[in-house]
Amino acid sequence: MNKHISEQYDIELSQIKELLMEMGGLVEQQVTQACASLIAHDTQLAEQVQDTETRLNQFEVELDDQCVSIIARRQPTAGDLRIVVSVMKAITDLERIGDEADRIAKMALSLARTELPSDRYADFRTMSEKVSRMLTRALDAFARLDIESALRVIQADEEIDTSYNAFVRHSIGAMRDKPDEIENSINVIWAARALERIGDHAKNISEYVIYQVKGLDVRHSGNPDIDD
Amino acid sequence: MNKHISEQYDIELSQIKELLMEMGGLVEQQVTQACASLIAHDTQLAEQVQDTETRLNQFEVELDDQCVSIIARRQPTAGDLRIVVSVMKAITDLERIGDEADRIAKMALSLARTELPSDRYADFRTMSEKVSRMLTRALDAFARLDIESALRVIQADEEIDTSYNAFVRHSIGAMRDKPDEIENSINVIWAARALERIGDHAKNISEYVIYQVKGLDVRHSGNPDIDD
Repeated sequence: MNKHISEQYDIELSQIKELLMEMGGLVEQQVTQACASLIAHDTQLAEQVQDTETRLNQFEVELDDQCVSIIARRQPTAGDLRIVVSVMKAITDLERIGDEADRIAKMALSLARTELPSDRYADFRTMSEKVSRMLTRALDAFARLDIESALRVIQADEEIDTSYNAFVRHSIGAMRDKPDEIENSINVIWAARALERIGDHAKNISEYVIYQVKGLDVRHSGNPDIDD
Repeated sequence: MNKHISEQYDIELSQIKELLMEMGGLVEQQVTQACASLIAHDTQLAEQVQDTETRLNQFEVELDDQCVSIIARRQPTAGDLRIVVSVMKAITDLERIGDEADRIAKMALSLARTELPSDRYADFRTMSEKVSRMLTRALDAFARLDIESALRVIQADEEIDTSYNAFVRHSIGAMRDKPDEIENSINVIWAARALERIGDHAKNISEYVIYQVKGLDVRHSGNPDIDD
């Protein structure tokens, strides 16, 4: 009987991680499509991203509920508790990444109305590819509890910050040359800013990997067999 | 003996809420000082905000640990669990508000180098006062579990979004007129954007009040006496 309960418990823990990965996959797709819609002035794709945002929000609420339910019914400790806490924190980051993708889609819709030359987006495209890779790596690291990969994501975040700052400086120069295009330039900067934030969230997700694997403090609960 | 344990448990639950309020007070101060430093070109104050940021990050880690420790040792359910979960979520929002205050301080330092006329900041000042009030109200609502107050904060967030959009439109006009000041204008826009995000976080904190008081789902754990 106890074995049965324990198996069921393990299944529940796996399930929240699987659901998180499913949510992560959807978020990755949102980011990719939002960036593609901006670069290609594809309003239909941008609207699709905005529609999918609602599904992501539902995902957040449901998954959050499952985590709280596991805490209430299973009363996890040690490593199990770290899994649940990490999943709960990662949910918030994924939802926020979804918000940023939504912002990029909004900028895409504004920009599509103005028909700018597409070479303007070269830097944005490069940055978006870096950030997408970072997000994928962060999710993989979370799924496989791969600390090395998580550390690489944390390092990559600094690169993104550098790219972003260069991007803004470059855009400011462009705005001075063409004051008529200020509004559009600002919209592209907003989108780049959203990418920079997505990088921050990917970094957060990687930090939870380290917390799950190394998990320190807290667990001086005096229970010797919590070291699973 | 059981009564003693239960009293101790209640004390621990009160403690995390008190610590959260303490952290909230520090965050409020950071926001106020960051905005003041920007408006007054006070570099010393801006640097002080940046120094205090480290203390906030420590606060986050410590308080987070205490929450996880309560879950592990006390295995809270129902209302108690909702308190711990809400505090954990609010910690993240407070820490992010601290990040935004830090960003405002950074912009203050950039702007102080350029000596702009201070009437430029009138709209920023108005927005900062609104956002500060919103944050204070959100923290009060959390402390007193005041749903009405929480709902008012959630409504106020829409006003902030409107002010922010007007602010950006106005700034874009100003940039067209004075291309030399584009960089400074963008810095003020960044600071306003940070305020808008602070409003979002204050809204999140208010939503946790509603979750704590009304707390739904989750708690179909089949335990009849969890309805405390």
